[in-house]
Amino acid sequence: MIQVAIIGATGYTGLESIEIINRHPQAELTYLTALPEECGHAESIFGRLKGKCDMQIEPLDLDKLSKLADVVLCCLPHKVSMGFVPKLLDAGVKVIDFSADYRIKDVNVYEKFYQQHTDTANLAKAVYGLPELFRDQIKGKDLVANPGCFPTGFILAVAPLLKNGLIETDSIINNAVTGSSGAGKNPSVKFHFPNMNENFFAYGIGSHRHMPEMEQIASEVAGGDVTVLFQPHVGPFDRGILSTVYCQPKKDISNEKLADLYNDFYKDETFVQVCNASPNLKDVAGTNYCHVYATISKGKIVAFSAIDNLTKGASGQAVQNMNIIFGLDETLGLK
Amino acid sequence: MIQVAIIGATGYTGLESIEIINRHPQAELTYLTALPEECGHAESIFGRLKGKCDMQIEPLDLDKLSKLADVVLCCLPHKVSMGFVPKLLDAGVKVIDFSADYRIKDVNVYEKFYQQHTDTANLAKAVYGLPELFRDQIKGKDLVANPGCFPTGFILAVAPLLKNGLIETDSIINNAVTGSSGAGKNPSVKFHFPNMNENFFAYGIGSHRHMPEMEQIASEVAGGDVTVLFQPHVGPFDRGILSTVYCQPKKDISNEKLADLYNDFYKDETFVQVCNASPNLKDVAGTNYCHVYATISKGKIVAFSAIDNLTKGASGQAVQNMNIIFGLDETLGLK
Amino acid sequence: MIQVAIIGATGYTGLESIEIINRHPQAELTYLTALPEECGHAESIFGRLKGKCDMQIEPLDLDKLSKLADVVLCCLPHKVSMGFVPKLLDAGVKVIDFSADYRIKDVNVYEKFYQQHTDTANLAKAVYGLPELFRDQIKGKDLVANPGCFPTGFILAVAPLLKNGLIETDSIINNAVTGSSGAGKNPSVKFHFPNMNENFFAYGIGSHRHMPEMEQIASEVAGGDVTVLFQPHVGPFDRGILSTVYCQPKKDISNEKLADLYNDFYKDETFVQVCNASPNLKDVAGTNYCHVYATISKGKIVAFSAIDNLTKGASGQAVQNMNIIFGLDETLGLK
Amino acid sequence: MIQVAIIGATGYTGLESIEIINRHPQAELTYLTALPEECGHAESIFGRLKGKCDMQIEPLDLDKLSKLADVVLCCLPHKVSMGFVPKLLDAGVKVIDFSADYRIKDVNVYEKFYQQHTDTANLAKAVYGLPELFRDQIKGKDLVANPGCFPTGFILAVAPLLKNGLIETDSIINNAVTGSSGAGKNPSVKFHFPNMNENFFAYGIGSHRHMPEMEQIASEVAGGDVTVLFQPHVGPFDRGILSTVYCQPKKDISNEKLADLYNDFYKDETFVQVCNASPNLKDVAGTNYCHVYATISKGKIVAFSAIDNLTKGASGQAVQNMNIIFGLDETLGLK
Repeated sequence: MIQVAIIGATGYTGLESIEIINRHPQAELTYLTALPEECGHAESIFGRLKGKCDMQIEPLDLDKLSKLADVVLCCLPHKVSMGFVPKLLDAGVKVIDFSADYRIKDVNVYEKFYQQHTDTANLAKAVYGLPELFRDQIKGKDLVANPGCFPTGFILAVAPLLKNGLIETDSIINNAVTGSSGAGKNPSVKFHFPNMNENFFAYGIGSHRHMPEMEQIASEVAGGDVTVLFQPHVGPFDRGILSTVYCQPKKDISNEKLADLYNDFYKDETFVQVCNASPNLKDVAGTNYCHVYATISKGKIVAFSAIDNLTKGASGQAVQNMNIIFGLDETLGLK
Repeated sequence: MIQVAIIGATGYTGLESIEIINRHPQAELTYLTALPEECGHAESIFGRLKGKCDMQIEPLDLDKLSKLADVVLCCLPHKVSMGFVPKLLDAGVKVIDFSADYRIKDVNVYEKFYQQHTDTANLAKAVYGLPELFRDQIKGKDLVANPGCFPTGFILAVAPLLKNGLIETDSIINNAVTGSSGAGKNPSVKFHFPNMNENFFAYGIGSHRHMPEMEQIASEVAGGDVTVLFQPHVGPFDRGILSTVYCQPKKDISNEKLADLYNDFYKDETFVQVCNASPNLKDVAGTNYCHVYATISKGKIVAFSAIDNLTKGASGQAVQNMNIIFGLDETLGLK
Repeated sequence: MIQVAIIGATGYTGLESIEIINRHPQAELTYLTALPEECGHAESIFGRLKGKCDMQIEPLDLDKLSKLADVVLCCLPHKVSMGFVPKLLDAGVKVIDFSADYRIKDVNVYEKFYQQHTDTANLAKAVYGLPELFRDQIKGKDLVANPGCFPTGFILAVAPLLKNGLIETDSIINNAVTGSSGAGKNPSVKFHFPNMNENFFAYGIGSHRHMPEMEQIASEVAGGDVTVLFQPHVGPFDRGILSTVYCQPKKDISNEKLADLYNDFYKDETFVQVCNASPNLKDVAGTNYCHVYATISKGKIVAFSAIDNLTKGASGQAVQNMNIIFGLDETLGLK
Repeated sequence: MIQVAIIGATGYTGLESIEIINRHPQAELTYLTALPEECGHAESIFGRLKGKCDMQIEPLDLDKLSKLADVVLCCLPHKVSMGFVPKLLDAGVKVIDFSADYRIKDVNVYEKFYQQHTDTANLAKAVYGLPELFRDQIKGKDLVANPGCFPTGFILAVAPLLKNGLIETDSIINNAVTGSSGAGKNPSVKFHFPNMNENFFAYGIGSHRHMPEMEQIASEVAGGDVTVLFQPHVGPFDRGILSTVYCQPKKDISNEKLADLYNDFYKDETFVQVCNASPNLKDVAGTNYCHVYATISKGKIVAFSAIDNLTKGASGQAVQNMNIIFGLDETLGLK
């Protein structure tokens, strides 16, 4: 049994991670931590865990961690995470980090959008944990940067096009919609139920924080510079991200060729399913699956993907990475 | 034109009141106030008012009020309101108060459930503003206590039974469900969208704060003591209260007689409509209407009512009261 | 008083039209019609109308219509409408038609996307009823083609850009989201609550039926050919369309200039409000208002608009057109 | 491995059953059937099953069934089921039946509320599959009547009170709310998204079809006749039933005693958790857990329970029964 610790266990990705590990036949939760003021019994913090998780969520103690865990799912926010990760690695555990801190390889880019990076040594060693694209690099690694939810949806929608050099790389538009759980667990005016219910709006307009991750990973897949205009929206539902990506094909391509391309590209992937119509968020909610579809419209390729932002976009993908790191069947706990 | 001020204009009942007065052919908004830290232009505080309400929401100035307003819709919370109402009345304006402060006639009861009452003189003069039951007392009054949303739904569901002495008065159960706007505009953990969406729960269990108002008004209608077990719930929708009231008939009554009774009782009422099946919240959302229905089930009478908690349960009823006070057609601005 | 008939009164736009005319100070409903099998008393067909609309919905009788109505709001579907409109005009009433039948000026285009046009004579005379752009042409007209909901949202989002020749006209992408009422009142698998709730998906992929109307009107505004890639989505809420339109500016423009441009373009318009952040659907739901906003992102202009699909996107705009036809204040019944 | 067939696999309980068996470590799906016109590949019928269930859903063939299955989850509707169950049993498989056909022991009662019973021989042998109350009777049985969703929520809320003779048995009121999936998968006007969204209403008023099952099981637990007034409602969410049950205690009891009673009664139950406040539907959605709570209010006991109608109220409970029948750990596939 792999012994798993969760750091930052009191947020939505913490809860999702707990529920997944609880179902995992070859992993077990051994240690849950959070900020001191958020600690308590797991079942009293999350009503959903009643009768399912007889554990305390405690303040982090590195000695305890090193004794209790083989791997840490580090659910801390951006900027906070890099303050902890070096200590976790020093404690001899493997780390799957949910923040953006180890995703952006170019320190200058990171520092432009976030702040000074304080752990560039580990940044250099981290691998970007998108299994469908970088499975081989993940195996056995000590530090995996778990991808962001929007970048995951984006790259799975367009990887077959980028990899095969079929689209212009200077004019990609990623129009995405997320459910409200993407906002995290802290109450706010925008996500107050009477405000968010029956509502729909764009946000992060002109804020380019999420773009560098998309551009970095797209460039890596394409083997050259890619620019992405990313516009997120939020809708009145809990879970899921639908990405609608508009691309300019370099030359004409038929819908049949597109379907063949996608089916071939993902033919060995359990968690990426190619649809023959628009994906539905409801079909992937609560699962680690990604549904993709691409078609021609008015001379452009429109590529769609649907994922659950908390599962394939966070905790599920982290467990998929964990399975790969430890040489297990990648789908354990996730089917 | 009646000149209307709204005090506490930045909450949900404030917004609802602004929208109703804006549609009113014989009333106009002349003064909007709020706590200093919440003030600003109405259109920037409420995106819904863009292009509709070119007014500042300002800190309260009693001199200004006395010059600008004939009547105040006082949307302040319980306990706060009674600190302002005497000054508003002294300023020479009529007051329709949305809080519980002037609803409970028995000071001892009020003080048991809230706190010491600091304005018992005006409490004694206030009239309970449920037009369908006390229309004649409201006319021309200076101070009207606007009923609570749950008591409004409750009493309209059972008034025909109580008035005619048809039910036992010691065993009434009011099981009610409200939409989330009843929680007010301040964000909280329970009403954070990812928590409230797809959720449903009871609250206020064993807390009897809302019961005295129901019991007082029911007793007045019945002409004798009535006790009410009230259990509220909240569901994932914005507006409306469905009350399901269980009553023990004193003697057998047929569904036909019940229908006749309700139709007769409400035959002259514009805003109370008798249905021949369960009311739907969606049919009354955004309106000042109340839909009622009563039927026999297993020897009990089950009486239903549906209202919009912000309209018939608050701002709409307040404007209905305002129309009555000033001798206008009661339905102005509300149909 | 303008006497108003509604044909096809039993659908969602019929109900919305009834509710608007009921609030209109200078218009009154005199005649409601529907298919024989859908007829009945308005209050029994729509629970929302209880106590508000004591009228029968009857099968259409042209003689009766000519006696009872000055104007018809014709809420019939595409292809059906053009079978009735000539008779309605012959009956001497003015017609505001909700279908696509009189919107597409080029008969060849219409026939490519719909079917043979059977009333080209009236098609030639019809005016496209978007008041903010064609107010002067609407005045006094006998036949107004009420715009589609998606085209309304689209054109209001980008008209300032097109009119001023600021964007490339061969690469506009309109990514839009509608609430579920756009699906109409007939139950279907996709819109069955347990399927649509917590769901989100694209539809009409590669189907270009809605594009010609957008392209025609955009071309007219731009004074030259415009092509539009339109991709609609549907989300789990009742009302509203958020359009997110991606445009390539011909030359660099600042956010300040964009704001000035939009504010200036719409400065005299009651129903179009320029925001300084993403519009919210909830701010326009149930109103005839359109909120717009445009900004620069990654070198492109992203223009947003929010409307209620049943109001500004259908019945509200129809009444706005009616007011203009009859020389009334354009906002009557709609503020 | 237990080999499991699902009959009526194309409905919501069919899908839920497929997903649960897919996670079950000691059971496997071997045969899925449906009406001929609903057959097809499982993954094309349910988008959610893409990549997870490479099986055809076929018309029922009894020979095939007898070869392929040890047990059948029979998801057929009331009245239809009893036409199939005898043949299934004759084919040598065990049957867990989801319909009401084998739940009502008194044929006269069944026939009063449904129709003539055509399989009274098996009715006499069937056991009522509520594990928390009748675990010992279920073990090894050939035919288990899987309880209804409302009766499950009801009886778990009040079993500790009934078993201990603490409440009057002639005045129990069960006020319950279900999510929309309870309506099944066929589109209807009431459950059309634009009608059901933001709505809430009572149904089945005065219809007593669900009461006999509640009364039968409650009487069995109480050891004497129990009558139940049951009033269901439906709200705008997918899953879950909140039951609020009002009971008259025979003599005074404290909240502490109530808590002790419930904790003691359910102390060995995995799937029934005793809360210290109102249960939340969201905490049990998608799980086989039931959360219960009881408290005193105005001299009455108000008992609450929350379950997922498709899981503990249907497919999850069926698998719990299956586990018991075959002597497995009762929680397999369900935690």
